[in-house]
Amino acid sequence: MGKRNLYLKNTPVQEAQEIYQKALEGVVTPQEEEIPVTESLNRVTTKAIYARYCSPLYNAAAMDGIAVEAERTKGASERTPLTLRPEGDFVVVDTGDPIHAPYDAVIMAEDLLEQADGSVQILESAAPWQHVRPIGEDIVAGEMLLPSRHRIRPIDIGVLLSGGITQVAVYRQPTVAIFPTGTEIIEPDQDPEDGAIIESNSRMFEAMVREQGGLPTRFAPIADDYELLKKSISEAVDNFDMVIVNAGSSAGTEDYTVHVLRELGQVIIHGVAIKPGKPVILAIVRGKPVIGLPGYPVSAYLTFENFVIPVLQQMNGQTSSRVPQVEAVISRRMVSSLKHREYVRVKVGKVDGKLVASPLARGAGAAMSLVRADGFCVIPQNSEGVEAGEKVTVELYRTMEEIDHTVVAIGSHDLILDVMADLMPTLYPGNYLSSTHVGSMGGLMALRRGEAHLAPTHLLDEETGTYNVPTLKKLFTEPMALIKGVDRVQGIMVKKGNPLGIRGIEDLPGVSYVNRQRGAGTRVLLDYKLKQAGIDPSAIRGYDREAATHMAVAAAIAGGDADAGMGIESAARSMGLDFIEVGPEEYDFAIPVRFLELPHVQHFLEVLKSREFAERVEKLGGYSLRQAGTILYI
Amino acid sequence: MGKRNLYLKNTPVQEAQEIYQKALEGVVTPQEEEIPVTESLNRVTTKAIYARYCSPLYNAAAMDGIAVEAERTKGASERTPLTLRPEGDFVVVDTGDPIHAPYDAVIMAEDLLEQADGSVQILESAAPWQHVRPIGEDIVAGEMLLPSRHRIRPIDIGVLLSGGITQVAVYRQPTVAIFPTGTEIIEPDQDPEDGAIIESNSRMFEAMVREQGGLPTRFAPIADDYELLKKSISEAVDNFDMVIVNAGSSAGTEDYTVHVLRELGQVIIHGVAIKPGKPVILAIVRGKPVIGLPGYPVSAYLTFENFVIPVLQQMNGQTSSRVPQVEAVISRRMVSSLKHREYVRVKVGKVDGKLVASPLARGAGAAMSLVRADGFCVIPQNSEGVEAGEKVTVELYRTMEEIDHTVVAIGSHDLILDVMADLMPTLYPGNYLSSTHVGSMGGLMALRRGEAHLAPTHLLDEETGTYNVPTLKKLFTEPMALIKGVDRVQGIMVKKGNPLGIRGIEDLPGVSYVNRQRGAGTRVLLDYKLKQAGIDPSAIRGYDREAATHMAVAAAIAGGDADAGMGIESAARSMGLDFIEVGPEEYDFAIPVRFLELPHVQHFLEVLKSREFAERVEKLGGYSLRQAGTILYI
Repeated sequence: MGKRNLYLKNTPVQEAQEIYQKALEGVVTPQEEEIPVTESLNRVTTKAIYARYCSPLYNAAAMDGIAVEAERTKGASERTPLTLRPEGDFVVVDTGDPIHAPYDAVIMAEDLLEQADGSVQILESAAPWQHVRPIGEDIVAGEMLLPSRHRIRPIDIGVLLSGGITQVAVYRQPTVAIFPTGTEIIEPDQDPEDGAIIESNSRMFEAMVREQGGLPTRFAPIADDYELLKKSISEAVDNFDMVIVNAGSSAGTEDYTVHVLRELGQVIIHGVAIKPGKPVILAIVRGKPVIGLPGYPVSAYLTFENFVIPVLQQMNGQTSSRVPQVEAVISRRMVSSLKHREYVRVKVGKVDGKLVASPLARGAGAAMSLVRADGFCVIPQNSEGVEAGEKVTVELYRTMEEIDHTVVAIGSHDLILDVMADLMPTLYPGNYLSSTHVGSMGGLMALRRGEAHLAPTHLLDEETGTYNVPTLKKLFTEPMALIKGVDRVQGIMVKKGNPLGIRGIEDLPGVSYVNRQRGAGTRVLLDYKLKQAGIDPSAIRGYDREAATHMAVAAAIAGGDADAGMGIESAARSMGLDFIEVGPEEYDFAIPVRFLELPHVQHFLEVLKSREFAERVEKLGGYSLRQAGTILYI
Repeated sequence: MGKRNLYLKNTPVQEAQEIYQKALEGVVTPQEEEIPVTESLNRVTTKAIYARYCSPLYNAAAMDGIAVEAERTKGASERTPLTLRPEGDFVVVDTGDPIHAPYDAVIMAEDLLEQADGSVQILESAAPWQHVRPIGEDIVAGEMLLPSRHRIRPIDIGVLLSGGITQVAVYRQPTVAIFPTGTEIIEPDQDPEDGAIIESNSRMFEAMVREQGGLPTRFAPIADDYELLKKSISEAVDNFDMVIVNAGSSAGTEDYTVHVLRELGQVIIHGVAIKPGKPVILAIVRGKPVIGLPGYPVSAYLTFENFVIPVLQQMNGQTSSRVPQVEAVISRRMVSSLKHREYVRVKVGKVDGKLVASPLARGAGAAMSLVRADGFCVIPQNSEGVEAGEKVTVELYRTMEEIDHTVVAIGSHDLILDVMADLMPTLYPGNYLSSTHVGSMGGLMALRRGEAHLAPTHLLDEETGTYNVPTLKKLFTEPMALIKGVDRVQGIMVKKGNPLGIRGIEDLPGVSYVNRQRGAGTRVLLDYKLKQAGIDPSAIRGYDREAATHMAVAAAIAGGDADAGMGIESAARSMGLDFIEVGPEEYDFAIPVRFLELPHVQHFLEVLKSREFAERVEKLGGYSLRQAGTILYI
């Protein structure tokens, strides 16, 4: 099996951060540079900045009008108007013009009676310094304009320039070398052959470095070759402020990184108690931080956040930005291990005034769980997990404002949900649809627990042969409605050209099948059809092999490790599979009546009935919208 | 007085926004472009993006170990180990390697007993598909990766590339021409002569355009010249998506913009009921939005936010980003007019669990109020204002996390407060000091109302001739402490060289004086000294002329419109003034005892006693720190 790194440790996250920070102290010193204020947006000041000039620079007229000596306007009134002459009594000023001695007040143009000879009459005396902006009213020379470690905003640029500052000392942007490694990885524009992995982490890191104000340089992938890796890292250390090596950080046979770093410098930490993400390497080579990150995308993302960003912020003069946190109720039990701190991605919805966090896929490879997440829920290292209904703290990515205007759907998956989620904010800005896919029955259970506004469902009642309504009657006591969705066709997906010549349910015994999870409408339909045909499920090879969505079933067939699986026509089409019709079914939305009047639910209904939705669904194929948006009160 | 624009209207803010948006509909159409995914950070998708490939691309090993046929491992147990041979029974796999038929499961390396001949023994059977990541587990080809109008984040870049997407359709970045205008404006690097205004708004606009994802081009200032302005705008309209003209948007004699725009195109709105900011011009010239903004910095900033950003967001596919809002108690009465919607900048502090908003300077020219603000409080157009203690809604710029860790100081001003505010987050990251300057007595009153943690104060008790303690005893019933601050020297500030030969208080009658506001410790000291000297305040010319800080007094003297004013030595130094000592005084911090144990107050104390603080104060000059940080319990 080859040589393994036996020394992968399990240091707690915070301890690892602190040990590494301590090791970097005195080694990493933030650098400073002077740049023009006009190019300083988002840069961070290294020291407090003091004004060079006052603003305004002089006593200035705050109004259009005339500048006068207040003392000499005394006694003017409606009954005893005072006439002022242009030679000596006043000067005309526009807003912003300087006011010089002996003048010390401004009378507004609106309050003047202009005379034919160029003189003016006033009906009221002027108070000293009226309508005059005194020198330094806004900024006084010598005043502190910005403190140190301040991220420069647009208004700061304006104020610095007004205060006579044109150059500003800021932290130099740290330069970061990023090395993707691995013999099997390919560039995104290469054709993927068997066993190839498209390299994308380094591009994500590039963007993360940019967001932190750093300057990333991403190198071409390096094959698993000890000497090559050593040479590359060694050169980078001389030319960059920081080096990131991606993948190869574990203890596998081809994981050279830790050996290279031990040879070149000092490995401070190898292995952190974080899930996903354990095999992190925190090293120092010739005074530069070098960090090895794991290859699974979620691990890569989380370990970058936890270990790279603090170092970048230190170099950049930033203190850690705290993410807003909220309390939410967790919708499902989550078991975790005492061995690590786990970051669980969650969708967050507000139902009945209560915040509910629904865990997403927990695998280290589930990058889409990060895309879909509204936030994170952290399960501490010393916890075995949380029970459904318990309160958890969520680090939020979205604003509460957005969450307040989001329709929460939990239940069966269909491609039309993605289309609706896309159309909601387009047609009704500020309104969103969030959907989590747990199958029809799972959705109805979530609805009953008050965790969703509505549940997409397609459950056949075996007794009556009708959809959804009987199940709702059975499960709910509160007044319910059914928003009619789409009629769609269920069928058997098989490889292009149907090589096994499958004609229907009766041909399933003997072929390799991939099923859906218990409670999924499609599985209920299969069971019903098998019963009708008198086939025992145990005769189906793969009946126990479960996939979570139509698309996952289609992918298994397209990938060649299953011959058939049931699903909807749009999924088969989208993966280029053949499709043998089994029968039509009704995919609807179950909803408690009291939610129907919510403004965002109303928008959901409007989207369902919109022309834009109809056009998009037409393109997917296999749907009928004849009843879409009709409401049945149960 | 010249020709004025008589048609400046007063359209309510929202009405103006809606009318302009309606006028732009069909005229402004967002443009699309295809760019590489690797360069798409922060760009906005024009349409939903679907995956081209699955991820993983094939069934892949999730662990290092061997790939086997699950079926053929049945029966293996501790008592009946099963031997597998490398030819045919298994292949060695590393994590990520593809698993091909007939193999359908992975056994972890840890669970293998390696034999000398290359075969392995297993003690447990393998379940089908164990430790295999099925094809499409994360991403299924055809699945929606991102919706339309989505701002691309680092993780999105990773997922797009993994899904086989290398080019992405995004909104083209709108190009914006920015024209500063005005004969009196100069560039920041020019020497300011009398009457000159340093042009800074256009640089602030540049940064604001960049923050919105636009591409700004800032032109050199244009003098007030009708034909020149017309030619410049006309050319820009042909070459840019949007044009901004700064200043000259009012109805003054030299405000040509509205006339030029009427000649070139259509002025939709001139004059909006917003304060600060009234003279806004919203126009359309040959299908392009052209916006005239007022010149005062705060007006410029607010009108940009209200009128330019919505247009940029429309071009950029963004829906308006809502700023987080909180409820706070307002600390001072704010009178406003029914005629406009007013944006009041506020400092926000959390004292005793209660959020308190303290209004900052309200002038249109008070750019520093924007720099210092923690947020805005909007007084609607139909309101006459709010009373002290009323609840208001604040649009927050800072996070609640920051506000929770901020020491709120309200009271007398000293330059050392700026130094402390600078040092707090530097020495104790995540901790802040916020200070508002209302004079010593104003601060103690705020403290009594529960609006601050502490009040910087230097109040002389006339009877005892001692500082601060007698006043605290008089004013508070709850247990109070006095954190000793600095000993400093008060004196009379006069022009460099003391041209009038002022020697002390006795020489003040007859010269032009600038005083501090009622309740300021410096004014109390002046009154005390005048009484001692037997001088009537009415003998002092300018006794009623009030400035709000030491620095403002110093600026008035430096600017030449006052001969003398009382203040502290550091202020005189910082403005290059001569300083005639009047006497020492004690500048301390009054604090209720129960606040002393707050962690951020503890950090405040540590800063006060720090070496870094001592060094910085030394440089300011005129201070003694002999008692700094000592606590007196009153």
